[in-house]
Amino acid sequence: MNGTGKRIYLAGPEVFLSDPYEAGRRKCELCGRYGFIGVYPLDNPLALDGLPPREQGKLISAANEASLRTCHLVIANMTPFRGPSADAGTAYEMGFARALGLPVFAYSNCAEPFTARTAASACGGRDVSGVLRDNAGMLIEQFDMTDNLMLDGGVLAGGGTVIIRDIAEAMRFTDLSAFEECLSRMKEKYL
Amino acid sequence: MNGTGKRIYLAGPEVFLSDPYEAGRRKCELCGRYGFIGVYPLDNPLALDGLPPREQGKLISAANEASLRTCHLVIANMTPFRGPSADAGTAYEMGFARALGLPVFAYSNCAEPFTARTAASACGGRDVSGVLRDNAGMLIEQFDMTDNLMLDGGVLAGGGTVIIRDIAEAMRFTDLSAFEECLSRMKEKYL
Repeated sequence: MNGTGKRIYLAGPEVFLSDPYEAGRRKCELCGRYGFIGVYPLDNPLALDGLPPREQGKLISAANEASLRTCHLVIANMTPFRGPSADAGTAYEMGFARALGLPVFAYSNCAEPFTARTAASACGGRDVSGVLRDNAGMLIEQFDMTDNLMLDGGVLAGGGTVIIRDIAEAMRFTDLSAFEECLSRMKEKYL
Repeated sequence: MNGTGKRIYLAGPEVFLSDPYEAGRRKCELCGRYGFIGVYPLDNPLALDGLPPREQGKLISAANEASLRTCHLVIANMTPFRGPSADAGTAYEMGFARALGLPVFAYSNCAEPFTARTAASACGGRDVSGVLRDNAGMLIEQFDMTDNLMLDGGVLAGGGTVIIRDIAEAMRFTDLSAFEECLSRMKEKYL
């Protein structure tokens, strides 16, 4: 336990990495170095063996929600995941934290703007009115944000920041320089 | 105003349709038919003209969060959007609602299971241990759910249901039969 005991929930798709525990250890170690306690989704010891997949999923979900409720702050990894947006579970947890009043800081290891990468991935183009739309005719957001405006909006409204780094694809889900910058900003603000 | 006045926040990517207001009118009209009041993100009259894009985005985000706080229930359109998962803003709002204690019902107009469509979109395959991974080596969830376990888990934990329909792609974001089934279930449970 450090001096302050402020707990940071670590939201992000690291749980899907080939060694998700090592990813959590690295993040928690950095949290400690900045005077915080990192809380990683896989910290919860759950008895999942032998349960049907859906029951396992429900237990993990409940444990993550319970963990979030024990935390004071969140750092969310918004790096685009399997599409132009952040991991859906991360987006869910950002909203969850925001409704609880927890300040959320976020980072993305992809520097390509949201509008550009959405247009690229969904074959975007301008319609006759000049509005940017995807190949299904649906509007592409142009709010100069990192992701869907609810995600950026929630971070900013709670006093957080979105840190952006241009990291090569091979390191995109493991590089922690932007994560560390979040910790540095949070230390200034909350410790 | 109907007899009960229960307000349902209508989360989903309809706001990106070519006529997002018509999409909202149709959903709100159905809500009324089932005895509920539909609350659509674009209901809020906002003075956005002339503001920089980021300021517009922040105002819309704040208005949506404020709307959610006035609601009793949520119906989320989890139909996969620009990738294997739900729209990121919808995922955020589901988490937000869940943290507030609002029951969330959800639907998807895509019947292909989450695991299969993630594997298809991210070139998934089994590693030497038989674990299903995407082309970046990241785990593909196999919890027999509609989307990331946080989304399904939040719906189920709050007593909600995820309704799934197999709708042709051209109608995927406009067909409201699954939405109406959510209303029917909610009427049984809450009215």
